[in-house]
Amino acid sequence: MNLLYLKTIQVVTMLLIGLPVLCQPLYLKNYLKNNEKDATPAVYQMIQDARKLKNPVLHIEEGTYHFYPDKAFSKYCYVTNHDNSVKAIAFPLIAFKNLEVRGDHASLIFHGLMMPFDIERSENIKVSGVSVDWELPLHSEALIVASNPKAGTFDLEISEDFPYVIQNNNLIFIKEGYRHDLDRSILFDPKRKAVAYNTNLYTPLEYQKEKKIQFPEKLNLPYADDFYSLYDNFSVKVQNLKFTELKKGLVRVSGPLKHVPPVGMVLVCKGQNSFNRLANAFHITHSKNVLLAHINIYHAGGMGIVGERSENISLETVNITTNPDRPSRMVSTTADATHFANCRGLIKINNCTFEQMLDDGTNVHGSYVKAAEKLAANKLAVIVGHYQQGGFTFAEKGDRIGFVDSRASANPAFFNIVKQVEAVNQRYYIITFEDKLDDRITKDFVLENTDWYPELEITNSRFRNNRARGALLSTPLRTIIRNNYFSNMMSAILMPVELSYWYEAGHAQNVLIENNSFGDSFYGGKNNKHSGVIAIHTSLDKNDYIFGKIIIRNNLFNNFDNQILEANGVNHLEFYNNTIKDSKSFAPLHPEKPVIDVNHINFLKIQNNTWRGKNLPADQIVKERIAADQAP
Amino acid sequence: MNLLYLKTIQVVTMLLIGLPVLCQPLYLKNYLKNNEKDATPAVYQMIQDARKLKNPVLHIEEGTYHFYPDKAFSKYCYVTNHDNSVKAIAFPLIAFKNLEVRGDHASLIFHGLMMPFDIERSENIKVSGVSVDWELPLHSEALIVASNPKAGTFDLEISEDFPYVIQNNNLIFIKEGYRHDLDRSILFDPKRKAVAYNTNLYTPLEYQKEKKIQFPEKLNLPYADDFYSLYDNFSVKVQNLKFTELKKGLVRVSGPLKHVPPVGMVLVCKGQNSFNRLANAFHITHSKNVLLAHINIYHAGGMGIVGERSENISLETVNITTNPDRPSRMVSTTADATHFANCRGLIKINNCTFEQMLDDGTNVHGSYVKAAEKLAANKLAVIVGHYQQGGFTFAEKGDRIGFVDSRASANPAFFNIVKQVEAVNQRYYIITFEDKLDDRITKDFVLENTDWYPELEITNSRFRNNRARGALLSTPLRTIIRNNYFSNMMSAILMPVELSYWYEAGHAQNVLIENNSFGDSFYGGKNNKHSGVIAIHTSLDKNDYIFGKIIIRNNLFNNFDNQILEANGVNHLEFYNNTIKDSKSFAPLHPEKPVIDVNHINFLKIQNNTWRGKNLPADQIVKERIAADQAP
Repeated sequence: MNLLYLKTIQVVTMLLIGLPVLCQPLYLKNYLKNNEKDATPAVYQMIQDARKLKNPVLHIEEGTYHFYPDKAFSKYCYVTNHDNSVKAIAFPLIAFKNLEVRGDHASLIFHGLMMPFDIERSENIKVSGVSVDWELPLHSEALIVASNPKAGTFDLEISEDFPYVIQNNNLIFIKEGYRHDLDRSILFDPKRKAVAYNTNLYTPLEYQKEKKIQFPEKLNLPYADDFYSLYDNFSVKVQNLKFTELKKGLVRVSGPLKHVPPVGMVLVCKGQNSFNRLANAFHITHSKNVLLAHINIYHAGGMGIVGERSENISLETVNITTNPDRPSRMVSTTADATHFANCRGLIKINNCTFEQMLDDGTNVHGSYVKAAEKLAANKLAVIVGHYQQGGFTFAEKGDRIGFVDSRASANPAFFNIVKQVEAVNQRYYIITFEDKLDDRITKDFVLENTDWYPELEITNSRFRNNRARGALLSTPLRTIIRNNYFSNMMSAILMPVELSYWYEAGHAQNVLIENNSFGDSFYGGKNNKHSGVIAIHTSLDKNDYIFGKIIIRNNLFNNFDNQILEANGVNHLEFYNNTIKDSKSFAPLHPEKPVIDVNHINFLKIQNNTWRGKNLPADQIVKERIAADQAP
Repeated sequence: MNLLYLKTIQVVTMLLIGLPVLCQPLYLKNYLKNNEKDATPAVYQMIQDARKLKNPVLHIEEGTYHFYPDKAFSKYCYVTNHDNSVKAIAFPLIAFKNLEVRGDHASLIFHGLMMPFDIERSENIKVSGVSVDWELPLHSEALIVASNPKAGTFDLEISEDFPYVIQNNNLIFIKEGYRHDLDRSILFDPKRKAVAYNTNLYTPLEYQKEKKIQFPEKLNLPYADDFYSLYDNFSVKVQNLKFTELKKGLVRVSGPLKHVPPVGMVLVCKGQNSFNRLANAFHITHSKNVLLAHINIYHAGGMGIVGERSENISLETVNITTNPDRPSRMVSTTADATHFANCRGLIKINNCTFEQMLDDGTNVHGSYVKAAEKLAANKLAVIVGHYQQGGFTFAEKGDRIGFVDSRASANPAFFNIVKQVEAVNQRYYIITFEDKLDDRITKDFVLENTDWYPELEITNSRFRNNRARGALLSTPLRTIIRNNYFSNMMSAILMPVELSYWYEAGHAQNVLIENNSFGDSFYGGKNNKHSGVIAIHTSLDKNDYIFGKIIIRNNLFNNFDNQILEANGVNHLEFYNNTIKDSKSFAPLHPEKPVIDVNHINFLKIQNNTWRGKNLPADQIVKERIAADQAP
């Protein structure tokens, strides 16, 4: 830990504990006009006035405030892992230094497509004491009140919270300035307020199928392979299911179903990818020292908190959950609770609750871009691989870039330093390097920015009841997961590496997972490839160990299913002093799988773990395979 | 004409006649790689290199060049009277001084959603010698090969130039990275290569109808009246027509039709408003002294040439028409050939042909914004009224603004000077004025920027065979229309004023229309309100004369229908030495209407016009009404 790092921590701590600094307060009550329905212009004016002050503190008094996009500050925003668009921003905290937004249990209610907070090119920012919710959520939920497996139909009871219409035999949910269809559906169990056990048996509903167009040979798309998602041109989707309105608020769904879903479950949906991540709650970008404390995020049409190209972000007592005033609501955010891409310094998550999201609890990673073509001796064109990373800041002058040969290993083959980045468009950048490009670079190479990975601490927090994973760990720097509770539809903790679909870079090198409690995990359905509560996985471990030192100790696993740990390609793996229990919550989905399944590990220590309540043959407790092609 | 104006003209002329200046040439051939399908990166690099030169001339050698959006320079663009979006720009001529693009009969072929030329914040720019076309047009055309009036069906023959699919009973035309439906349809007559006579009898096809949503009361849209187009929330459109594929390339349309359209006509469509103006050919904004010469624009998904907030734009021998190599094609640009909003200096159109567009030949106007609320003594919030003017530069510091009481007159009641404009978002601006706001301002006021109107000269040009009008004239400065040919589906020349739908400001004050030839006009269908070949119209003339001095002389009108001139609210109107003939091309649509219908004119001279080939009762030649409420 160097001096610079200590200094950074001090600044964050100072903000955190509110050490006396000369602050200049502003009060929202002084900006609000009587009987004004929309707080947006008042907040905007307060923020504009704050630009003239030193260390401004923006007080949001106790109360409920509504925000509408119509008069909101707007700009075209690149938000990583979201759909770029013109965002209507309620709190544009852009280019500020030393600013605090201090809510006194202030309830902020948003309408339609808005991004509540944008913290951009700012330093030393604290936001606290607010809750974020939407008047009408940007996803939809409907209770299954009847089903007829013989006829292949089921009936949805749609409450008035979800205005809808059947349009050309498609069920469309209407929001305030937004709409979506039944795509990306999943079942929630209202008794558990969690993703339903074995939902994969029923969902996603295959409600549309592909249909080819006429005269496709006339479409001239030379880059369709490179920029795959730009082009869905050769086919369209047509209705597979049929929707019939039996009466107002009651819609019968019929057609080819995997299985007719059970009565009593809640069908949740958010519409088609590329159109369903437009309204994340917090965006933190190109900023330093940001603290979010005592905040409730009850909903977002996208992620709760997105951090990118930022240094030192702390979340202290941030609760991402459904609004207690809306007890029937199943879903909080429609994508990850939190997500950090290309950050550095320290990401700290303490005493937080992330539950009922439609995607991961957190995901901390870098980003790969694809080598496209050499334009000069030191000039390389690259393509942003993931369509939802368009426009993100892959690198800036001075950054150290690792060149990864995706055929060989996820470990960089060589490095170079960035001189200049020219973002020609959102997906195509031209990078000039300090040194001549290595001759080995081919189209199989991806590039990784090794200067922008953070340390990560997740402590005293709860990750549960959501679709997908608890935490994805993809930073090579010190990572501590301590004293948390996890229970998730898929793995509680996943350490992945892949170079060709998500383009999320960074493989764990230094991870300590201790004193956590893991409840039921991977209950969403059968998965022949993976089912570990903790999964450390790559398909790139043939010539190399991809992951570094990973220690898992003193944890409690109370799971309904067998598999606790799966790992491959790890240099140093310790799993000891853990207690494993059978929760008996559900019928096991993978009774045949071993408790621990490890493969291609350089140093392995499995010691002093207790298995109780299970009666397993020895070879199903630990299965250690050595890949035939493993290099010594 | 002041000195500054003369100087400006000189600069334009210098560029025009290519006086010897020290130019630095660049050649596209030096940038193109062998066998590269896509010229976009080569052109981009040439333009980047041009930034380092003085007076660069970019040579595009004779040949055909293809452009794709994938590697194109892109940015979010506000293009007035279009749909704002991230535009992929082939020629980003941004922040240049003294630059020429000199094509040698270069054929530029675009793919998908692209904006070929963006001339932005630039001065002394000339583009010449290029043609612009699209590989697959962004609108669609299909020949009507059979019809069955009894059954209410007709059959469309769709050629391989128009890939399509029937998706959920909607006919969808597929382009390269774009698609549209059958909305905004119209008939073209392939014999005349023009909008079909009386197309309004058949089109637009009413192929969708409104359907109300359930639980609309839950939608909380406080500004729905102000920002009307943001919200289409309370209803959706559902199919009215049915589409059946009889065989590949043959689709039967059935359902409720106004009238079954006749066999032999071509049905043309471009899809829904708000999604069909994404790819104009030329955008000129915040620039000065721009000359486009010897250019062919064969297509654009939007307008051919859009000029906004620019000074001195000259079009010399610009042909907007269909590509002679594609003889069956009906439509050139899918919106106006040219359009100039908030320009000043001189707009000059000479020796141009604008034909077969799906909207007006030209439209020269300012823009109104709506007064929304007083925020301080000299601070007014305004709303951009027209949804396709979002983000446009209404005014900048120093501009003189007229305040128009829309209940009383289109003439400003008082003025104020702009100190600062804050574009909070695309539709909501906060303007600070030099002086205190006048107490009379209410929500009924609109604001007009009186500093940004151009002089206009249209000479030796052809406006014909398009949907809508020939030329819309809405500038108070000197306007000359001389030696042109017009023949259009609606009025050849329209001088409008209205303050509440299009928000296009500026009423003609000084117009000379002479030595033009007008062919058949207003042949698209019956229109009870208007049908003048030349129409000067406002509904705001109750207390005031809105238009100034308008002289129409020495023109030939060879029209199939009666009405030649309609005018009201004009201070000084002369119509003399004109020859009016009966073309006998079609059956008259409005035989009952007078040849000249004038109303509320202060000074009127109608003299020495000849009517030939018509046999009309006297009261049908000139009908002059004095409005009962006309002020003296």
